[in-house]
Amino acid sequence: MLKECKNGERFEGIVLVNEWKEVPFRQKPGAFLSLTCQDRSGVMQAKMWEYQPQILTWLRDQDIFFIQGVASEYRGVLDLTVEEIRMIPKEDVDLTMLLPCSPIPEVELETRLRALLNKIHSPELQKLLRQFLDNPEWGTAYRQAPAAVKIHQAYLRGLWEHSVRVAELANGIAGHFLSMDQDLVLAGALLHDVGKIGEYSYDRGIKFTTEGRLLGHIVMGLELLSGEIAKVSGFPQELRYKLLHILSSHHGKYEWQSPKRPKSMEALVIHYADVMDAELYQFEQAKANYPEDEWSPYIPSMERYLYLK
Amino acid sequence: MLKECKNGERFEGIVLVNEWKEVPFRQKPGAFLSLTCQDRSGVMQAKMWEYQPQILTWLRDQDIFFIQGVASEYRGVLDLTVEEIRMIPKEDVDLTMLLPCSPIPEVELETRLRALLNKIHSPELQKLLRQFLDNPEWGTAYRQAPAAVKIHQAYLRGLWEHSVRVAELANGIAGHFLSMDQDLVLAGALLHDVGKIGEYSYDRGIKFTTEGRLLGHIVMGLELLSGEIAKVSGFPQELRYKLLHILSSHHGKYEWQSPKRPKSMEALVIHYADVMDAELYQFEQAKANYPEDEWSPYIPSMERYLYLK
Amino acid sequence: MLKECKNGERFEGIVLVNEWKEVPFRQKPGAFLSLTCQDRSGVMQAKMWEYQPQILTWLRDQDIFFIQGVASEYRGVLDLTVEEIRMIPKEDVDLTMLLPCSPIPEVELETRLRALLNKIHSPELQKLLRQFLDNPEWGTAYRQAPAAVKIHQAYLRGLWEHSVRVAELANGIAGHFLSMDQDLVLAGALLHDVGKIGEYSYDRGIKFTTEGRLLGHIVMGLELLSGEIAKVSGFPQELRYKLLHILSSHHGKYEWQSPKRPKSMEALVIHYADVMDAELYQFEQAKANYPEDEWSPYIPSMERYLYLK
Amino acid sequence: MLKECKNGERFEGIVLVNEWKEVPFRQKPGAFLSLTCQDRSGVMQAKMWEYQPQILTWLRDQDIFFIQGVASEYRGVLDLTVEEIRMIPKEDVDLTMLLPCSPIPEVELETRLRALLNKIHSPELQKLLRQFLDNPEWGTAYRQAPAAVKIHQAYLRGLWEHSVRVAELANGIAGHFLSMDQDLVLAGALLHDVGKIGEYSYDRGIKFTTEGRLLGHIVMGLELLSGEIAKVSGFPQELRYKLLHILSSHHGKYEWQSPKRPKSMEALVIHYADVMDAELYQFEQAKANYPEDEWSPYIPSMERYLYLK
Amino acid sequence: MLKECKNGERFEGIVLVNEWKEVPFRQKPGAFLSLTCQDRSGVMQAKMWEYQPQILTWLRDQDIFFIQGVASEYRGVLDLTVEEIRMIPKEDVDLTMLLPCSPIPEVELETRLRALLNKIHSPELQKLLRQFLDNPEWGTAYRQAPAAVKIHQAYLRGLWEHSVRVAELANGIAGHFLSMDQDLVLAGALLHDVGKIGEYSYDRGIKFTTEGRLLGHIVMGLELLSGEIAKVSGFPQELRYKLLHILSSHHGKYEWQSPKRPKSMEALVIHYADVMDAELYQFEQAKANYPEDEWSPYIPSMERYLYLK
Amino acid sequence: MLKECKNGERFEGIVLVNEWKEVPFRQKPGAFLSLTCQDRSGVMQAKMWEYQPQILTWLRDQDIFFIQGVASEYRGVLDLTVEEIRMIPKEDVDLTMLLPCSPIPEVELETRLRALLNKIHSPELQKLLRQFLDNPEWGTAYRQAPAAVKIHQAYLRGLWEHSVRVAELANGIAGHFLSMDQDLVLAGALLHDVGKIGEYSYDRGIKFTTEGRLLGHIVMGLELLSGEIAKVSGFPQELRYKLLHILSSHHGKYEWQSPKRPKSMEALVIHYADVMDAELYQFEQAKANYPEDEWSPYIPSMERYLYLK
Repeated sequence: MLKECKNGERFEGIVLVNEWKEVPFRQKPGAFLSLTCQDRSGVMQAKMWEYQPQILTWLRDQDIFFIQGVASEYRGVLDLTVEEIRMIPKEDVDLTMLLPCSPIPEVELETRLRALLNKIHSPELQKLLRQFLDNPEWGTAYRQAPAAVKIHQAYLRGLWEHSVRVAELANGIAGHFLSMDQDLVLAGALLHDVGKIGEYSYDRGIKFTTEGRLLGHIVMGLELLSGEIAKVSGFPQELRYKLLHILSSHHGKYEWQSPKRPKSMEALVIHYADVMDAELYQFEQAKANYPEDEWSPYIPSMERYLYLK
Repeated sequence: MLKECKNGERFEGIVLVNEWKEVPFRQKPGAFLSLTCQDRSGVMQAKMWEYQPQILTWLRDQDIFFIQGVASEYRGVLDLTVEEIRMIPKEDVDLTMLLPCSPIPEVELETRLRALLNKIHSPELQKLLRQFLDNPEWGTAYRQAPAAVKIHQAYLRGLWEHSVRVAELANGIAGHFLSMDQDLVLAGALLHDVGKIGEYSYDRGIKFTTEGRLLGHIVMGLELLSGEIAKVSGFPQELRYKLLHILSSHHGKYEWQSPKRPKSMEALVIHYADVMDAELYQFEQAKANYPEDEWSPYIPSMERYLYLK
Repeated sequence: MLKECKNGERFEGIVLVNEWKEVPFRQKPGAFLSLTCQDRSGVMQAKMWEYQPQILTWLRDQDIFFIQGVASEYRGVLDLTVEEIRMIPKEDVDLTMLLPCSPIPEVELETRLRALLNKIHSPELQKLLRQFLDNPEWGTAYRQAPAAVKIHQAYLRGLWEHSVRVAELANGIAGHFLSMDQDLVLAGALLHDVGKIGEYSYDRGIKFTTEGRLLGHIVMGLELLSGEIAKVSGFPQELRYKLLHILSSHHGKYEWQSPKRPKSMEALVIHYADVMDAELYQFEQAKANYPEDEWSPYIPSMERYLYLK
Repeated sequence: MLKECKNGERFEGIVLVNEWKEVPFRQKPGAFLSLTCQDRSGVMQAKMWEYQPQILTWLRDQDIFFIQGVASEYRGVLDLTVEEIRMIPKEDVDLTMLLPCSPIPEVELETRLRALLNKIHSPELQKLLRQFLDNPEWGTAYRQAPAAVKIHQAYLRGLWEHSVRVAELANGIAGHFLSMDQDLVLAGALLHDVGKIGEYSYDRGIKFTTEGRLLGHIVMGLELLSGEIAKVSGFPQELRYKLLHILSSHHGKYEWQSPKRPKSMEALVIHYADVMDAELYQFEQAKANYPEDEWSPYIPSMERYLYLK
Repeated sequence: MLKECKNGERFEGIVLVNEWKEVPFRQKPGAFLSLTCQDRSGVMQAKMWEYQPQILTWLRDQDIFFIQGVASEYRGVLDLTVEEIRMIPKEDVDLTMLLPCSPIPEVELETRLRALLNKIHSPELQKLLRQFLDNPEWGTAYRQAPAAVKIHQAYLRGLWEHSVRVAELANGIAGHFLSMDQDLVLAGALLHDVGKIGEYSYDRGIKFTTEGRLLGHIVMGLELLSGEIAKVSGFPQELRYKLLHILSSHHGKYEWQSPKRPKSMEALVIHYADVMDAELYQFEQAKANYPEDEWSPYIPSMERYLYLK
Repeated sequence: MLKECKNGERFEGIVLVNEWKEVPFRQKPGAFLSLTCQDRSGVMQAKMWEYQPQILTWLRDQDIFFIQGVASEYRGVLDLTVEEIRMIPKEDVDLTMLLPCSPIPEVELETRLRALLNKIHSPELQKLLRQFLDNPEWGTAYRQAPAAVKIHQAYLRGLWEHSVRVAELANGIAGHFLSMDQDLVLAGALLHDVGKIGEYSYDRGIKFTTEGRLLGHIVMGLELLSGEIAKVSGFPQELRYKLLHILSSHHGKYEWQSPKRPKSMEALVIHYADVMDAELYQFEQAKANYPEDEWSPYIPSMERYLYLK
């Protein structure tokens, strides 16, 4: 893995080349190649001082390569001097080796997801969720998509992890309130971010798609879910509104791009569970990244320093 | 019409009873009926001092009645003393007699709509619009729905009037910019508020539906339009995004419940045409309501006094 | 109870006179007495058409009286024609008969409070909480004070009920996060609103005290808690900061009068548990008040209509 | 032109030296000259390794020079190694060669301006506009000033171009509304930004003047226009208010430094035409700068990425 | 004076009739006159049960009348039953008898104003201020105009009182800062609100003028002052900017309609002196109006309750 | 002093090492030491190319050192090449030599403080202030703490200087208002920022303490002052509220972390005196730093450019 490589050590492995350009030398003719390489462990800058013109053609067409080189440090930052670069067929590569991935194993996520599903008594919601999660296309995408481009769970399986966590949290909260519809809370929590399946692409790092930028995951999720509901015969009209309302309002505030604010108890709980999971995730990350420190650095997305003790 | 009736005159006609209740007398046993009546010309309070119990049953079941009574004035406000009230079959009634209605005649609106349609060259957008506007259900609803519960074009055919005005305005603006896609502007403007078809009900005054409150006309419009697009074979994916983006962003700001802000030239123009039509409509209304005055009263939706000269 | 009294029925009982004034007759000399009466069941207006001058002296000095009279309705609202009014010694009266009170019985609240206390393992936090809750002055006040002047739990024992609910909720949420200090969450949740003990007075309806208006319950709670901590020998300095930070930040945002925003995981969870309990309480109230309705009336504190189905 | 020069090529020409300083060498005594040069085509950094002391005197006094040198590239950015620098008399230089300039030719702008003027029927507004536009000082300045320091039309003749575009746009919009005063719209649109004549200086790049910073173009425009109106005998008082109101309110919102918000239909239309021209201009620029791209880079003044397809 | 009149007493005197209308009787033909009367002491509602038609003609043309009648009370509010109403020539009336007026005597205000003027050493500022204050038109208007329509110093001579108070306050503050230009502070403070001369009319109560609503006192003051400066030969250009900047920025924030924010020390001090005078004035009023109370009622313009002890 | 040292000159003296790290050489094995040094005159970067390992141990334990080296300039910035570094006992060092310090001499500050104290007539406030200022711990800390981490009076004795200035300013303002309690203004102004004593540490530059970050100087000041008041026997309860309210509200707005807004005249004056002192201080600094310039650079804390003439 790139990030395991130390100053002076050699690196050999498969990387994703996110960006590249030719940079002219300052004091002589010619140019060198500057590359941004990435694998599951993180991102590293690389330079290639001499290269065949044909490599440029490869780079224009593809983004996964086998590279060899040596790491060296400058002002505390490591970068890679690449000696060889080789194409590699996309099919031979496991995407989870090239992109960061949820720290929670698939088996555990699946077990926790099944446990949540088993709590749902409503036959229509059961049918809807199983149809969606067992669908080869949606079910796979749901389990592979990231939850964000940056900030929280910005890695493969991030959507899955986030959905399960929010559902567990919301389920616990809802348990304190008699008049809450627990089935709706569970289904809404598992599906609230479903539009992220299409909002991000993740074959060259994690990026927004054009559809994602133009419509956003709330609108895309509503459309996806609406289509899935249409396939469940006899799905009650009122239940449909309630469920779509949860997606439509889960950002909680207009300023956060929510076309509606939560107007039902279930939508309210899912909104807060979503916010709490995202914010507490950042505490957990900060504690992991700065295990010795009393205070995190300034966290822009939280607009504050976090106390870690 | 209710509002044509003067102090001391008799009234006979068909009205919509929006609300009613029994009010106990203060100084004797028994109660009188208090009714809120409405026809196309406006709303008037009414009282019925004596009535058969069976009338209460009627009122619970229905809302359109033939009434007879006398108007009298108190502190400058007229109300109606009802002498007789009679059921009338719903089928016999033309809704446009009971609710306020756009001042622009249907024939003119249809002509202006057709003129706009004829400017669209894209075969897919043509097909989409004709399919929607000629659909017996959607086409009728689009031509009958109000544009708002209050504030602007809050009357029957208001959506139609507003859509045509916005399209004409946006079309004119777009004509100044070479790189603008005029077809997209026209189609987007005609369809931007299409979700209002289901956001309001208008058989008992103009009110929000439950689906309207939970999802809102942006989300409902996206769903409706998405379904219509799916029926047009060969509709380009990119055009679909662009058109849906216009609906998704036409409120312009997150605070105004827009899940996206305009990111294309066409969406930007439709947003401003929409805002201008709604605001200038309020100037026109104020000029009509206060023809003698230099200043309107304070207009809360505009947060200001309007200068009318 | 006042609110159990129906049109035409007699009322006899003890009430709190919140406000009163003499109102001159319009068409003859003299005046009548207008009174605002309250007991646990709610508030009712009253009139006394003839009265001894000495009654005015009583009203200036006291606010709890035995009254007799007849209820009558005007435009759907009941008010009371008082025939007799009599002083009653303050000591003879149980405040919980005159002011509204939490619907949860004392025994249940105490049981739930004890269960929460028993989960705390930290000896210092245990000591602090028991010292405070068993203190004859603080312990009683904590169990009797309201949680608000209006909006949520604005009744006797409201603070107690709210604190227990927030602690249960926060405890459940915290259980999902390994690095959370559960003891701190429990203690912080039970104590977060402790300053409300002095922010409100509740012997003439529920009102703000001058100290409450000038300092507010956050500042008053910090002072109270700081004094209590000082009495626990060996209370760790770091734990003291963490606990005081929870009080200082529990409103979450500067705009909500929070001098700090939550910077620890525990403070964050308590903030959200507090918000959720207050908001869901309003849903529960709306469902109770409008059991037949799909939608609540507009709720200003929530800035929205609530969906009740 | 500076920007036409490629890596390794020689440059000879007249430039504006916007900024300069002596920079001490790091590893030997002495210093080199660092210069910021500009001509119509853009800005380029330059260095002069050896130079006569007298050059410093020149640079303190003047800013237009003839220079000779060679362009070389470092990390993708070109800069100029200057070999010779020579003073040149200010009179010999055409300012439009040194500063960027509107892409629309003068002849076209004048034609479009005249066409707009000819649509105005009010004799007083005609007189006012011709007096102003034919005034040797104002008329010239109006046709030469930029419309902004950056963001939109930040080049010579930018004010002229922007005013003509806004007037055309506003004229088209106003045509849809019967009660609009078209003459006032045209005059107001052509004059709305007239204060920019003095808000910017543009003999050393485009910069704010001190008066511009202390008073701003709204206040300066009101003063200028008020003086011009005073010279038109018999100019109606009411028309004067209406016209000054347009200047005073054209930014639309208090937060955008508008001392008034639009209170007349004409002021409202000019505000929106102004906003639309500025925003659509940025789309046009982005399409021109990134002809191949689907998305622009993040545009801070628009607070978003722009969709360019 | 109207407000000295008690229940059952007769009133005879000159009043300003601010508003009037005919109100039809509820239970018989015909109508009565409803009038809003005002003199220096305050406002009172009046009714005239019988009247000659010719009185309506008078009311349309004029607003100052001699009236006779009897005061009577209803629910604690007095109103006047008018028996006779008579026209009175405008010239015979002293406006200060009909409108409320500053409690500070003219002599004292003039003395304090002169004392402030005498502190100014700059000959140009001296000349400017004396020219303005001794001008028969401006000087009189400055000494008579109110400072507001409501909230602070909303009475005749209010502008004068407010200007003197702000100048004294700003002068004191500026004295603590060495680099402050005291002359500029004094002149700026005395002139900062000069545009209020034309923003309000005060011959029928205190109301906004159309020019005031369309331009506002900041823009109107800048224009007035700019004209006055033009008459002082040799007034330095820089001093002119600085002084105009003070007017332009004295509201301090864009949201408060300030086209500029204070960018000089002098402008900053005047802004704060202005805010403090207006806010402390409201404390003084509340203390005067509620001499016994610990707390004022809620003061909307301050968005809070004021503590009065 | 560090900042007196010029290019090529030697430096010898005692410095505070704020930060340090080892930086590996890019083109050879080994590393150099990078140090951030500070004394009263300011901050300078330093490098040490060769050093004994034991120096690292020293740096981990301590932060005050005697150093010798040579200054050299690169791109206009001086840094220090350190030749020797030596430990020095903390006791031998005067902190005011190492950290920047108020430009006002201690003697002057003490005189001005005493003059303010002598104006206070209330025996309780006198007692409170003398007890606090003469307390060896508090009195010393109050006279040594900075007023901020950056922006205004961010140096030793800054709190003292700021408190005296605010008290003088507020005293002057209050003198214009009869109903103001001058004693309360003086005491409140001198004590308003007292919590800053513990909010910052200043033995390694000026930094926030953990308590300062978790509670803030408002809460810390309230606690400190509350404790001091408790020691003054017979201190009136009402006076206590008023004084604590001043601390609690002196930031003026909720967004500025004020748990209360000023509700008394005295609190209002202190809030504005505090804001004015901080803002005018920045003008004074800008005038001192840019004595030749008409405009300051952009000042982020003021969100504007300052006019300096």
